[in-house]
Formats: sequence, structure tokens, C-alpha cells
Amino acid sequence: MSKKILEYNTVSLIEEDLSVEIIDQTLLPGTVSLVRLKTAQEMWDAIYLLKVRGAPAIGVFAAYAIYVLAVDISKKTSDVESFYNEFLKEKEYLNSSRPTAVNLSWALSRMDNVCQNSLMEAVGQDNEVMIGRALSALHDEACTIQKEDIDMCRRIGENGLQFIKDGYGILTHCNAGQLATSKYGTATAPMYLAHERGMNIKVYADETRPLLQGARLTAFELSSAGIDVTLLCDNMSGALMRSGKVNAVFVGCDRVAANGDVANKIGTSVVAVLAKYYGIPFYVCAPSSTIDMNTKTGKDIKIEERPAKEVTELWYKSRMAPEGIGVFNPAFDVTDHSLITAIITENGIFTPEIID
Amino acid sequence: MSKKILEYNTVSLIEEDLSVEIIDQTLLPGTVSLVRLKTAQEMWDAIYLLKVRGAPAIGVFAAYAIYVLAVDISKKTSDVESFYNEFLKEKEYLNSSRPTAVNLSWALSRMDNVCQNSLMEAVGQDNEVMIGRALSALHDEACTIQKEDIDMCRRIGENGLQFIKDGYGILTHCNAGQLATSKYGTATAPMYLAHERGMNIKVYADETRPLLQGARLTAFELSSAGIDVTLLCDNMSGALMRSGKVNAVFVGCDRVAANGDVANKIGTSVVAVLAKYYGIPFYVCAPSSTIDMNTKTGKDIKIEERPAKEVTELWYKSRMAPEGIGVFNPAFDVTDHSLITAIITENGIFTPEIID
Repeated sequence: MSKKILEYNTVSLIEEDLSVEIIDQTLLPGTVSLVRLKTAQEMWDAIYLLKVRGAPAIGVFAAYAIYVLAVDISKKTSDVESFYNEFLKEKEYLNSSRPTAVNLSWALSRMDNVCQNSLMEAVGQDNEVMIGRALSALHDEACTIQKEDIDMCRRIGENGLQFIKDGYGILTHCNAGQLATSKYGTATAPMYLAHERGMNIKVYADETRPLLQGARLTAFELSSAGIDVTLLCDNMSGALMRSGKVNAVFVGCDRVAANGDVANKIGTSVVAVLAKYYGIPFYVCAPSSTIDMNTKTGKDIKIEERPAKEVTELWYKSRMAPEGIGVFNPAFDVTDHSLITAIITENGIFTPEIID
Repeated sequence: MSKKILEYNTVSLIEEDLSVEIIDQTLLPGTVSLVRLKTAQEMWDAIYLLKVRGAPAIGVFAAYAIYVLAVDISKKTSDVESFYNEFLKEKEYLNSSRPTAVNLSWALSRMDNVCQNSLMEAVGQDNEVMIGRALSALHDEACTIQKEDIDMCRRIGENGLQFIKDGYGILTHCNAGQLATSKYGTATAPMYLAHERGMNIKVYADETRPLLQGARLTAFELSSAGIDVTLLCDNMSGALMRSGKVNAVFVGCDRVAANGDVANKIGTSVVAVLAKYYGIPFYVCAPSSTIDMNTKTGKDIKIEERPAKEVTELWYKSRMAPEGIGVFNPAFDVTDHSLITAIITENGIFTPEIID
């Protein structure tokens, strides 16, 4: 019998093949295709084209990716200075693939620090020894980032569980699920735990245009886990809330500014405004790695604008809109901290004011 | 050179062919296909499958349709009683195609009244004379409904123009355009008039899932008219409003309840809540035929639920969501009167409280 989607790893290091393996998420739910990425260009494309996506998963992926590229570099040079210069170039290149999620630059910075530290500690040794130590440290750090990610998600689940009661209807947007992390997901972690503990919940998944991560990924992984899930178009959440079927909203997060403003998948702020209007609590599940104290408010977060054809052509060849029109296609939006009931992290629950 | 989309009639009676001709709107913007409908089944399907859609256009279509069917009936019977019984059956059948827009039943009731009155006036005459008079009256009434529709739209445009200033950004949802009426549209009428008078406006069109009327129809007809139009996914309107680019929202309407609550395309209430939150005026353009004093509040409006596959399969054969999940697919939602700045009709501007 074929494996269920949650039995696959979202991101894996394949040591013997010196590559990073991912599920190509652009092909889900129709096809489960594992792809191995070896070159910087392939890795950059995988992030940009959303073959791997979700802030935590991008962090883990970037860590393994820069490790694989460092091994590649070590095969071409035995000089420490040129090794490190090339490492920095690849790091900056990967970092340019998507601007909004802080985890990408956060993971790459962690890897850079580890590389620098291990080189410093080995100063005076042979070049090859220094580079070997750096590679070993990079390998361990990337594995640690992934282990921390799994642990982080589980703890977010534990912390968020208190906001779910038996019989709840829960709305979520986009995919902040296992497919966006290494396990459990962030926004979905409390749902998986509630389900594991026998609670009866009903999850409503916004389809999340333009790339339909809610339809393709969230509905897919939750239903694979046996959770009752109902799909709706993004513009139906108002009618759903008005009907009284939604008791709580849980969403993920790509970056939290110092004042508690949250950048997440486009449409998140719409759900937040609706939840406020209909008196429904709105929870943001955020790994502490997404909290960026260097970003003062939501206005300082760079919002990625993506290609028009994601909107006009959907996933197909046939165009769904006339030629010659403008298209507004931001990938994220900012949710004002005043709309957020609580931010759930692996270290506890915060109200946006407390972070400030 | 090929005709522009606005040069076609949305609905026409083809007398010599005893049929009603429409543009098949499910094929736009890729293909402009005129289809002629002759049987009750074809007409019912055309409404249900949204080949013809938009509350005012459905009204005009239904009027011509029941006239064509009445002529058909007259060929099969010369007995007045069986003629009228058959007429009523066909009327009820057409009326069952879509429940939410009041124009369908409004137009059919007008036609029924005219039929009854002309039969009454001719009582005592030959059966054939009576039926002939009824057919003639039905023909004239249907033409009148269409003429009134054109006039109504123009007057809504004139009445709404006062709310548009040069340089305005205007958001609209779904298609309450010429393609939803006989000319000018309702929500788009003030835009067409503003454009005709040389005002510089920028229109933002929500794509309007699941059937993409905003992308396929509104963006199409406005850009054909030379109006600057930008398409966005439904979940992007929050970010757009937050950016300050939207000065006013204009939407159409399928039914106004006595208390001013408005039923319109699913997602309208989401835009209304957002507009309220961001302090942007929200205008409903409503032919007075959509005001239904027999419906007390929005809660009393029957909301059509449509097939799940509209959401899960888009317009294509490939499924975009996993099997075995639930789908929430209401075609309309209710916007609370407290969210509406004004209702613009052909007879003037009303605040929801005044209607009450």
C-alpha cells in the first residue's frame, strides 16, 4: 500500500547523494513526487517556485542546501579564504529567493555563524582541516535546525491546545501544516494534537488563491490524518463566520514585527478583520524564529510581489483573464497587531503588546 | 475587424428564429459564442449553468424566454385554459433555476400578470384571438422590461456618479457590469459614465471565486471600454485597502431585504466588512426591482448552495483538491445593512435605514 502523505519528510538531507530531497509541493495533491536538488540554481528555483514552501520548512531546506553547497565548494578549492568567500556568495544567492519569511535569512545566518566560528576555532591548522571542521559543524547545525523545528511545532501544538474545545469549528488559511515544517505544522499542530486526543473538531480550510495551498496542501494533509475538513473559497469565510460555525481561527506566520504586526500569506489580514468583526478569536502560531525584533512594525516588512500569471492563468495553460489588464499579486499581507488575540510560540503564549 | 464585447447584446429576442440569443458567459473571455435557446430545458440550463447571469440580465432573459415558450405552447393548443396552464408550468419551471436573485421571479410575475390581464380583457372572444392578444402583450412586456433595464442602468450610473472623483481607485466584486444587464451594468454604470466624461479612474476587480466572474467578465468588459483595470484575487482586497489605493467600493445586488440587508455574490460581505474597517465607503447599486419588501431581513433570503466541483475542479478537468473532503460553496452572502454606506437605485440614493 502506498505511503500516506504525512509519512514522507517535507525536507531531507540525502548524504550519500549529496542533495536535499523535497516533496515537490506544486504537484500535490495529484502527484507525490520526491525531487533531489544539488545545484544552487535548482535550490533557488525550488524556493522561488514554491516546490518547498512554508517559513519553517524553507529554513530547514536552506540550512541543508547551504551545507550541500559548502561540500561542493570544498571539492573545488582547498583555500580557506576562497572557500568562505564562495560560501558567502551562495548564501546570499539562496537568501535572494524570497524576501518576506524571516526563517530563510535566519537559518542562513545561523549556518554562516557556525561556519565562521568553526573556521576561527581551527585557525593555525591546515586549510583542509579547517574546511573539514567547518563542513562537519555545518552538517550538525543543519540537523539541529531540523530537530528544533520538529520540537518547536510539537510545543506550539501543546501551547495552542488550550484554545480548542471539543466540537470546535476551526478556520485556517493557506498551509501552515506539516508540509510547511518538518512535522505537525504550526497552525495545524494544535489540531493534530486535539485529534490525537480524541477531540471532535471540524476544520475549515480557505483555498488560498492564487496558488491554492489550502485546497492542495492543508485539505490534503488534514484529511490524510483523518480530520474532518471542509474546503471553501477565500471569499466564503465571511458567510461561514456569520453562520456561527467558526469558533477559532489559527494561522501561521512568516514574520512578526517588534510591535506584534504579523506578515503571513496574502489574505490572512482579511480573515483577521472578519474574525474581529464576528467576535471570533484569532491565533497566530509562530515559531520564535519568525519574531524579528529588527523589524519595527508591519510597514517595515518587505512584501513579495509575484508574477501576474499566477493569478491570470491559475495552474493551467488556458488564460482566465483578458490580456492587457493590470494584476495585483502580493504573496503576503500584514495583519495589524490589534486584530490578533494571541501569538502562540514554542515558548508560550504572547499577546502582541507583550512582544512590543 | 471583430466586434468588441460591449457591442454585443447580453440578451436578445430573435423573432424570426423564435429563440432567445445570449453570449455564453461561461466561455468568456477566451471565446465570444452566441447561442440561441429554444426549449425550456435549454433556458433553465442557461440560467443554472450561468451562461446568462447577473440579476437584471436574468430578468430580461426570463421575460423573453417565457414569451418564446408561450408561442410554442400556442402552437400545440388552441384552448385558452390549457394554454394558460402550460404557461404557468413553464413559468414555475424557469423560476426554479436559481433561488437568490429576485429579478427572476419578479420578471416572470410581471409576465404572468400581463398574460392574465390580456386574457381577461379578451374574455368572450374566440380562443385564438384571446391567445393571440396574450402573446402580443407578452412580447411587448418583455421588450419593455429590457428597455427599462437599459434606462435603469443609465440612471443608476447618473445617481452614482456623485460618489466618484477624478483620480479615484474603485474596487468592485463579481460582475455587475453590462454583461449582467442589458447595458452599462449596475455597479459599473457610474464607472462607465465617469470614464465617458473624461475622469481618470482606476478600477480594481476582485476575481470572484469560484467562477471568476471578476477576472473573466468585469476585467474583460472594462478593459474593452478602455478603463484602467487591475485584477486581484479575493483575498488581496484587504492588502489593497490597507495600501490606501481604494477610495470607494461599488457592488451590485441580487436582493435587498426590507431592512436594507443585501444578498449579492459570495464575498460581497467580506468586502463590506473590510471597507468598514478601513473607512472606505461601500455602495450597493440596486435596480429597484431587486428591493423585496416581502423579505424582512437578510436571514430570510434563501442562499443558493452550488456544486462542490466548482471549487475543487475550477474550470478544468484536473482536480485541485483531494477527494473525500467537504466543500462549502454558497453562491451568495448577506451583507448587513450596517455596513452599507448607501444603496444607489434608478430612483435615487437610499440609506438602508430609509428603506426600512
